[in-house]
Amino acid sequence: MSKREGLMATIKEVAALAGVTPTTVSNVLRGRGRVGTETRERVLEAVAAKGYRPNLNARALVERRAPTLALMLGCITNPFYPEFTLQANNAARRHGRFLLVCNTDYEPDGGTGFLADVAGSLSDGILVANNGDLHIDELTAIQAAGTPVVISIWESPDISPGIPCVAFDSHKAGFIATEHLLDLGHHRIGALIGSAKNGIHGGRYRGFHDALRSRKVKHIQADARFVTDSYQGGFDAAVDLLKARPDLTALFVSNDLPALGALNAAATLGLRVPEDISIVSITNIELASQSRPALTTVAIPTAEMAEQSIDLLIKLGAGEMDVPAMIRTADPVLVRRASTAPVKK
Amino acid sequence: MSKREGLMATIKEVAALAGVTPTTVSNVLRGRGRVGTETRERVLEAVAAKGYRPNLNARALVERRAPTLALMLGCITNPFYPEFTLQANNAARRHGRFLLVCNTDYEPDGGTGFLADVAGSLSDGILVANNGDLHIDELTAIQAAGTPVVISIWESPDISPGIPCVAFDSHKAGFIATEHLLDLGHHRIGALIGSAKNGIHGGRYRGFHDALRSRKVKHIQADARFVTDSYQGGFDAAVDLLKARPDLTALFVSNDLPALGALNAAATLGLRVPEDISIVSITNIELASQSRPALTTVAIPTAEMAEQSIDLLIKLGAGEMDVPAMIRTADPVLVRRASTAPVKK
Repeated sequence: MSKREGLMATIKEVAALAGVTPTTVSNVLRGRGRVGTETRERVLEAVAAKGYRPNLNARALVERRAPTLALMLGCITNPFYPEFTLQANNAARRHGRFLLVCNTDYEPDGGTGFLADVAGSLSDGILVANNGDLHIDELTAIQAAGTPVVISIWESPDISPGIPCVAFDSHKAGFIATEHLLDLGHHRIGALIGSAKNGIHGGRYRGFHDALRSRKVKHIQADARFVTDSYQGGFDAAVDLLKARPDLTALFVSNDLPALGALNAAATLGLRVPEDISIVSITNIELASQSRPALTTVAIPTAEMAEQSIDLLIKLGAGEMDVPAMIRTADPVLVRRASTAPVKK
Repeated sequence: MSKREGLMATIKEVAALAGVTPTTVSNVLRGRGRVGTETRERVLEAVAAKGYRPNLNARALVERRAPTLALMLGCITNPFYPEFTLQANNAARRHGRFLLVCNTDYEPDGGTGFLADVAGSLSDGILVANNGDLHIDELTAIQAAGTPVVISIWESPDISPGIPCVAFDSHKAGFIATEHLLDLGHHRIGALIGSAKNGIHGGRYRGFHDALRSRKVKHIQADARFVTDSYQGGFDAAVDLLKARPDLTALFVSNDLPALGALNAAATLGLRVPEDISIVSITNIELASQSRPALTTVAIPTAEMAEQSIDLLIKLGAGEMDVPAMIRTADPVLVRRASTAPVKK
């Protein structure tokens, strides 16, 4: 059905047909150099006649530059990642690059298999969407071998991973979310954290903790659950926690996805949100505005992180020396919706 | 920060350090040929010492095969696409390929810009996720020039697009969903269709229509809305339709995303689902099981379509002649959840 011979059309054949040099063909196709209108049209006709397509692999070899950037992410079906991917994709396209999306979680050996194949050849830059499961040594080795690496969605602006990164203040996000509940008069606040205590959401949890402490509100370990960062993880843990601690009037959830699970868990238990229980979380994915009730959440700068990360990767790839080791993005911002209300007297 | 020189490590240098031929290095790295354990270890040590990475672009040139397959899709933030992408990605990885994900909707000229760059060089196969906006002429030209093209999620098993495709029976999906409502005693059924009447969801709409006709239930045009295939499109149209036609007892929605919007629209109007209004749709994305109430929907074979499409693309790329022009996947299946109930007397 397909004719592999078609691939063989070379730039020389196109040049011969158009009566120009291969350099002229190349200039026309890349919008470079000075080529008269007539010549340009003759070249484009010859390109069409031969079905010629410039070979990007060959171009990448010649220029020592591959036209793709690789985005390593946990799992594309976590709705945060498509939103981040879309922004990164648009930024990459503005720089004339394609984005190669790699789902590391579903490789038998995590990201390792991808990285070995991708770095330095298929892609000329690696953007790692931090999911708390980084192999820093491996990333450092790739960087040392000449392929720029940038870590994005880094949660701790005070700690450097030793690799260029784009960070947001996760501690502040947790602090702001919790302050909102305290301002509404809540003192019995449970916590659903989408990682281990010192895992990826550790900064968010410490922000929660410090906000309580700043108002001299006690937090006991029994009010916290460390759960899988998923809808189901949030649902199951919320059912468990709300049954075990019926005096809770609010939940701090470290991420929107488990918070959406917690919303449904409350309904399943016959609790009204926000009348019986307030729920606040962090991120502001699109679904947060579509749940019922819509979710109050602290928005993190997803689009800015994606754009800054791609820009940084491009600069590193161009050999720019004057680039920061860490870019700190704008502060998180509370988005008030319908899932939080003043505590009942 | 990065050392571009690192890229220069060649297979010859690795071979020299290990005291073997470049072919042996290549065999070790690719798991081909017979290489003794000791030699293998020496080669791997030399590879590590030199920081050598096989250049996939060079390999692709030599083999006339790029290691990526390109997936062209409408928009990664439509939650159907991440689910399809994940399955296609896993299938591609089983064949040793990477999946290059391309968001065509966000290119100024749709998919055209991508295809010109991708076909025949960056990728050795193009998988087009049908979003109703295909440029068949362009796909045919790419195919004729030697790059295999497969259209997936083709909605009309009776009509060939003239390009190898993987199809499901969208008419049957619409028919099954509507029969379910009829079986529950509904006769006043509105329709929210996520395309123009003869657009991408035309088959689903005709299935709805034919199911009504088979039971001699009248359908009037005023009970249908042709809307944007999105959460908000479904929300807005459902508000409009349910206000205009208060005697409706059920809604047939052609896709889960607008159906989730319709669920919230009903709640906004003070209508209980399913007590006051039943809602059924088509696809069965993950969110359909997480809404409140959970959505009754007709599941289409998403995973099967993704897998079959990648397999077909690989076969075409390998020059296999004995491949079908169209693969018809398993029939859609009703998934009963909580958004549908018998009509109130």
